[in-house]
Amino acid sequence: MTYKIKEVKERVLCDNDAVAEKTRAELRKQGIYFINLMGSPGAGKTSVLLRLISFLSPLYRIGVMEADVDSSVDAAVVAEAGVRVIQLHTGGLCHMDADMTARGLEELNLEGLDLVILENVGNLVCPAEFDVGANLRMMLLSVPEGDDKPLKYPLMFTVSDVLLINKIDTAPIFDFDLEKAEKYARALNPDVSIFPVSAMTGEGFPALADALSGWIQQRRTGE
Amino acid sequence: MTYKIKEVKERVLCDNDAVAEKTRAELRKQGIYFINLMGSPGAGKTSVLLRLISFLSPLYRIGVMEADVDSSVDAAVVAEAGVRVIQLHTGGLCHMDADMTARGLEELNLEGLDLVILENVGNLVCPAEFDVGANLRMMLLSVPEGDDKPLKYPLMFTVSDVLLINKIDTAPIFDFDLEKAEKYARALNPDVSIFPVSAMTGEGFPALADALSGWIQQRRTGE
Repeated sequence: MTYKIKEVKERVLCDNDAVAEKTRAELRKQGIYFINLMGSPGAGKTSVLLRLISFLSPLYRIGVMEADVDSSVDAAVVAEAGVRVIQLHTGGLCHMDADMTARGLEELNLEGLDLVILENVGNLVCPAEFDVGANLRMMLLSVPEGDDKPLKYPLMFTVSDVLLINKIDTAPIFDFDLEKAEKYARALNPDVSIFPVSAMTGEGFPALADALSGWIQQRRTGE
Repeated sequence: MTYKIKEVKERVLCDNDAVAEKTRAELRKQGIYFINLMGSPGAGKTSVLLRLISFLSPLYRIGVMEADVDSSVDAAVVAEAGVRVIQLHTGGLCHMDADMTARGLEELNLEGLDLVILENVGNLVCPAEFDVGANLRMMLLSVPEGDDKPLKYPLMFTVSDVLLINKIDTAPIFDFDLEKAEKYARALNPDVSIFPVSAMTGEGFPALADALSGWIQQRRTGE
């Protein structure tokens, strides 16, 4: 399976939130659910995505947008999973904004899709600041990063609807206190849904896929 | 030991590289060596810094600037190590620029220092773009992040003089190929000095401290 590469450098003049709302309205009209997946470099975004694809692709036709500063490693891997995928290059920029995302969606081609997932640039700061028009913001914190990250990157934890704590199988090796991480995250964001998972072992993915599927259905049947 | 907190939000108008050069000239006049330490969230910047302080503080009077979006966790930890430290808050910004750094150095108070280390905001994209006036750019890649990171964040690997591969004690657990990581990094930056280290076990730090000390001496005796 092949994939296209598109340069989507930032344009300065647009009103980000207005473009994001327009994207959301357009996707709703087409019955497409849109997830913005965010996290540090190396937190395991692509591995988590591959696990999700294996659980969700029997139920939904999935499209993926891989955003990276300028490599195409991830799109090549995701294309192997047999879903429609496009690689977006941000031209050095540390995040995707709503306009870049809208152009990416157009290039991806939404026809026949039920679910689109954007794998954002690996970064815990900038992507938190931009509504890209998604229905769900899902962030990854990986165990080796440490349980104190909500204290240091509060905005990302505040704006995310779902927090995945990945590489949970390595918790005994690192000095990672799951309860502490959850407590810090909930102090910033009481409504956040938290799932400890391991993309390596598959632990936690059945529950996560169930929850996602519930939200997708809820949205499609009109909330 | 206490520490000050300073807000250093971005000012738009300055010429970053000119300010960086001015900082470098000023520090040279005062015989101070300046290291810019960069890496992902959770790569272990603060733990590496603490190890370096224990090796280098018998030789040099060290000052530390901790840059974070808005927490003060790191400065509190570093202050315990008995060095002069200041916490800089970037007001949401994903990096330090030369102007913010110059203001931080002024607030830190350089009098009587030999070595200043800036722990930059946890991020593999934005900090790579800004010369802050340092003599040495030192980046951390941690084993759990994966050996493919040079492919995905090439600028950071290109501009760094030193690459520390941290958490090397966990290499057997993660599927991390040290040779591959080194190969990718050297393809971008043939002159980079690479040190596998573990801030947890202390492995690799004697060699790193020796090398840093050599560079500091070289600079002070006038290259």
